[in-house]
Amino acid sequence: MSDQQVLIIQMILDSWNQQISKTANLINSLTDEQLMQGVAPGRNRGIYLFGHLIAVHDRMLPLLNLSEQLYPELNGPFLDKPDRAVATIPTVATLRAQWKTVHAALAIHFESMRPEGWLLKHNAVSEEAFAKEPHRNRLNVILNRTNHLSYHYGQLAFLKK
Amino acid sequence: MSDQQVLIIQMILDSWNQQISKTANLINSLTDEQLMQGVAPGRNRGIYLFGHLIAVHDRMLPLLNLSEQLYPELNGPFLDKPDRAVATIPTVATLRAQWKTVHAALAIHFESMRPEGWLLKHNAVSEEAFAKEPHRNRLNVILNRTNHLSYHYGQLAFLKK
Repeated sequence: MSDQQVLIIQMILDSWNQQISKTANLINSLTDEQLMQGVAPGRNRGIYLFGHLIAVHDRMLPLLNLSEQLYPELNGPFLDKPDRAVATIPTVATLRAQWKTVHAALAIHFESMRPEGWLLKHNAVSEEAFAKEPHRNRLNVILNRTNHLSYHYGQLAFLKK
Repeated sequence: MSDQQVLIIQMILDSWNQQISKTANLINSLTDEQLMQGVAPGRNRGIYLFGHLIAVHDRMLPLLNLSEQLYPELNGPFLDKPDRAVATIPTVATLRAQWKTVHAALAIHFESMRPEGWLLKHNAVSEEAFAKEPHRNRLNVILNRTNHLSYHYGQLAFLKK
């Protein structure tokens, strides 16, 4: 693999890391009470978007063939159901800890991935489909999830005074 | 340049094109009246975010060394100044036309760019800095602008009923 190719892969990972870092800084600047508010009238609460991002990122572990999902109990309240549909959800304090654990796990796996590994298929595409559509690789998951993160980060920013 | 490298570059361009397409669909689904509303109480109006994205993307033309900026008159009301600070701004109808023109121009230039061209420096970095920081290339502008677009797309989505 060429130096240029390694550079481009690193650019994509840096873009992901940058958005994760910005979102973490925002979340850290918000109180638990602020995160219990809707980001706009009639819209998702901060805690829902926060839990949603953790669940989506946690599921990247199996999707990228790195490990089992760490917190499958988040799927119900933050992926399968809309905000306010599940009566009992984790506290903001619990989610703050889970955010750190999930992103630390992803970072360790990402740092140990060989550049070639990023071009392997992810686990939601069949061998047959991947043979025809080689862009459905692990690196594309990072691109897609970075956009998804940026989308909700823009919404969470409305919790700032 | 390897097939793999061309594939990765295309994935980044596809990611940009996908977010542009999603945002265009959203804007097309909103009335002029909806775009004159704030996306949330006390936040930017839809027209401001729309003009802001057009101005930022228009400036990619000189930044990527493709052409002059097409609508420098957007910089004042949508980049230099906050929303509602400039009394007379273009109409939504004018912005809808300018959005199309800017993205058509970018698409034509992007399609004719050789893959190697994406790794050249952009115009906001010096030769000296670029020699030490080769990630400050044109492709990185696409990554950054796609995240910026996704951020505001998430906010514009609040204009939907």
